[in-house]
Amino acid sequence: MPPFEVPEGDPFGPHNLPYGVFSLNGPADPAASNASAGSAGSADSADSAGSAGSARAGSPGRRVGVRLGDHVLDAGAAAHALGSPYAELLAQPTLNLLLAAGRTAWSDVRRALTAWVTVPAHRETLEPHFHPLSEVTLHLPFDVADYVDFYASENHARNVGQIFRPDAADSLTPNWKHLPIGYHGRSGTVVVSGTEVVRPSGQRKAPSDNAPVFGPSIRLDLEAEVGFVVGAPSAMGTPVPLSAFRDHVFGLCLLNDWSARDIQAWEYVPLGPFLGKSFATSVSAWITPLDALDDARVSPPTRTHPLLPYLDDASEEPGGYDLRISVAINGHVVSEPPFSTMYWTAAQQLAHMTVNGASLRTGDLYGSGTVSGPSEAERGSLLELTWNGRDTLELPDGKRTFLEDGDEVTLTAWAPGPGGTRVGLGEVRGRITPAPEIH
Amino acid sequence: MPPFEVPEGDPFGPHNLPYGVFSLNGPADPAASNASAGSAGSADSADSAGSAGSARAGSPGRRVGVRLGDHVLDAGAAAHALGSPYAELLAQPTLNLLLAAGRTAWSDVRRALTAWVTVPAHRETLEPHFHPLSEVTLHLPFDVADYVDFYASENHARNVGQIFRPDAADSLTPNWKHLPIGYHGRSGTVVVSGTEVVRPSGQRKAPSDNAPVFGPSIRLDLEAEVGFVVGAPSAMGTPVPLSAFRDHVFGLCLLNDWSARDIQAWEYVPLGPFLGKSFATSVSAWITPLDALDDARVSPPTRTHPLLPYLDDASEEPGGYDLRISVAINGHVVSEPPFSTMYWTAAQQLAHMTVNGASLRTGDLYGSGTVSGPSEAERGSLLELTWNGRDTLELPDGKRTFLEDGDEVTLTAWAPGPGGTRVGLGEVRGRITPAPEIH
Repeated sequence: MPPFEVPEGDPFGPHNLPYGVFSLNGPADPAASNASAGSAGSADSADSAGSAGSARAGSPGRRVGVRLGDHVLDAGAAAHALGSPYAELLAQPTLNLLLAAGRTAWSDVRRALTAWVTVPAHRETLEPHFHPLSEVTLHLPFDVADYVDFYASENHARNVGQIFRPDAADSLTPNWKHLPIGYHGRSGTVVVSGTEVVRPSGQRKAPSDNAPVFGPSIRLDLEAEVGFVVGAPSAMGTPVPLSAFRDHVFGLCLLNDWSARDIQAWEYVPLGPFLGKSFATSVSAWITPLDALDDARVSPPTRTHPLLPYLDDASEEPGGYDLRISVAINGHVVSEPPFSTMYWTAAQQLAHMTVNGASLRTGDLYGSGTVSGPSEAERGSLLELTWNGRDTLELPDGKRTFLEDGDEVTLTAWAPGPGGTRVGLGEVRGRITPAPEIH
Repeated sequence: MPPFEVPEGDPFGPHNLPYGVFSLNGPADPAASNASAGSAGSADSADSAGSAGSARAGSPGRRVGVRLGDHVLDAGAAAHALGSPYAELLAQPTLNLLLAAGRTAWSDVRRALTAWVTVPAHRETLEPHFHPLSEVTLHLPFDVADYVDFYASENHARNVGQIFRPDAADSLTPNWKHLPIGYHGRSGTVVVSGTEVVRPSGQRKAPSDNAPVFGPSIRLDLEAEVGFVVGAPSAMGTPVPLSAFRDHVFGLCLLNDWSARDIQAWEYVPLGPFLGKSFATSVSAWITPLDALDDARVSPPTRTHPLLPYLDDASEEPGGYDLRISVAINGHVVSEPPFSTMYWTAAQQLAHMTVNGASLRTGDLYGSGTVSGPSEAERGSLLELTWNGRDTLELPDGKRTFLEDGDEVTLTAWAPGPGGTRVGLGEVRGRITPAPEIH
């Protein structure tokens, strides 16, 4: 099907237009290293190497792409062909220059792109710059600066509290309703959808053990999250208020915060998660601009505790997003977490993260925390779905408590769009490979 | 005094040669923005803005420098003048290319530099490329990738445990002797020595309060630490063993991990420190290569618990460093923490940090954790020195429990060098400025 003829109801129609970074497969393109796989394009395993962001940005053949249906538009080439003033912003090997350009530029570029893919007069000019997704490799779309992960789902926090602190008077810690709890993660191991995830090894200690033992994690888990991508930076010493959220945050992606529960349980007191999380965090290859999600905005749940002024969003625009997430293991849906149930909004998380004067950089990424709804079928982690292994999950290929080698986890999501349409988020997909031998 | 005539006993003699990044002051240099201050050069406040590393690297006028006495050698210009093969590695606006070059290159470049500053035949050629420290501005010397902070001093951990968990059976958590506890910090707010530190605001809650209150931190603290700088990257999925420490770690610096104890106390359960630490971390402008510290290597304290094989350093080269740190407030020495007392070594920290398959990137920085010796005069934080404000510290300008606005904290250190010399580490200095009004 020609690129412009997107079927009605396609969640990646001209109302969506998410951004990514791609290179062409085949011998003509020096950046292509992997064969393509599936309709979403294949992941570049080079993204998983320990290379610095600057090395990535220098890779030949990478260019900014915009998704339309099952095609990707080479945005820089299109801009050049049309003589657009945005050619420099778009003819780049990462999204970073566009991210840094700020909210007005984001809106202007989106308006231009919308015209390019909808005005028939452009078709002949642009046709050569569309490529089927099956013929491209998708890369990590931006250089990740700092990565922070929050803990904003009340259902998730209560489930975790009941599992790990069964004797506590309240399943929430005393601070939970007063501030969005978060911590820094490892930005160097954020990888693009499709990158294989090596099972981590580490220390674990069962309560009955006298000393810790070492070996591959036996409680490897997924966490269904939404990631927010910071575009415009902020100065050190200057907090970013709730009202400035959309001046700084460009868009969102799906995020799987892989977690080794056994490693995490032994290490995390008193300074928080470290090796239980730092081995890999997968993000979708497509970043959905917030401008595409205006029809998905909803009010967050009613606040049960009064909030300090810098977090009080009662008089702000609705800060929630109605994203319907789906979690599948080997193609079998195991959960459908509703993002609209999150207690803390992305704007509150940004305001909190900077209220101490911490600066923002272009490419900062922050995760929402695991998304879990109130019902059992809406839990965003195996920890909750199997109640820390007490129960089993029945899959067509067998029972699970936690992830096994070879399992592939896929997160997908959609949100309400204009006029009854759906806005699709890019999927995030990852397969578990066995731990290496460590002596 | 001419640059080559370093006084005997100078801790920055030709046996040291730490690396930094500088620009020339004065109207001739477009990068100079601050007046110089003090013998160590002034800090560039632009480093504290929320700019990404790539923006910094693009700043004009910055160049790699090597310190000799009270001068800095423009290393790239010197290499060009001498027709050295290392001109490309050294004629850079950051240390990143040198860091990435790996251990053999580090040794080769150091050998060349040693010859340049000691062989009389080079004097005439190199003289124009030396600049007095008083005429340069020092910058953050490398783009920080991930920043991790450890907790490796047994004395510090026991003090903190007694202060915060007085009812616990053991002042150490059960995992402390089995693994080097650590967590990720914010790399975007790592700043160079001399950068002013804005007092952070945030939530705090005294045990007697019903709800948290918001305001400037009233328990602002310093933490005397040593930072280790990763040069050579490692691949995701491949742990770095103890024996490969010096293949990956280029050198070390002094580090002040500023901490707001009141913010930290309220936020840190269950996911660890976040805003109590993320507002600023100061590092010295000079990175001392490990090759300059061979005479400072010592065995770590006797291990009281058996270690898992990946952490067992009994058959490795001595992993400790005999660094004598000094902590001063407004020029008055308040503590002298001995780094040789650290229970966990930097090599063990690196092995632990990667044992789960997490990759290393050029520019990764990890802190040792607060250095505290066994005696009261060796404690590396005000939390310990004043026992969380119970006691006061008598300074010439008045009493202190925690830091006041206007206080300047300076960390200095030296280590034993060859033939009875001292190897000086670059100082890390920072002054507290008042919190901004936040509504």
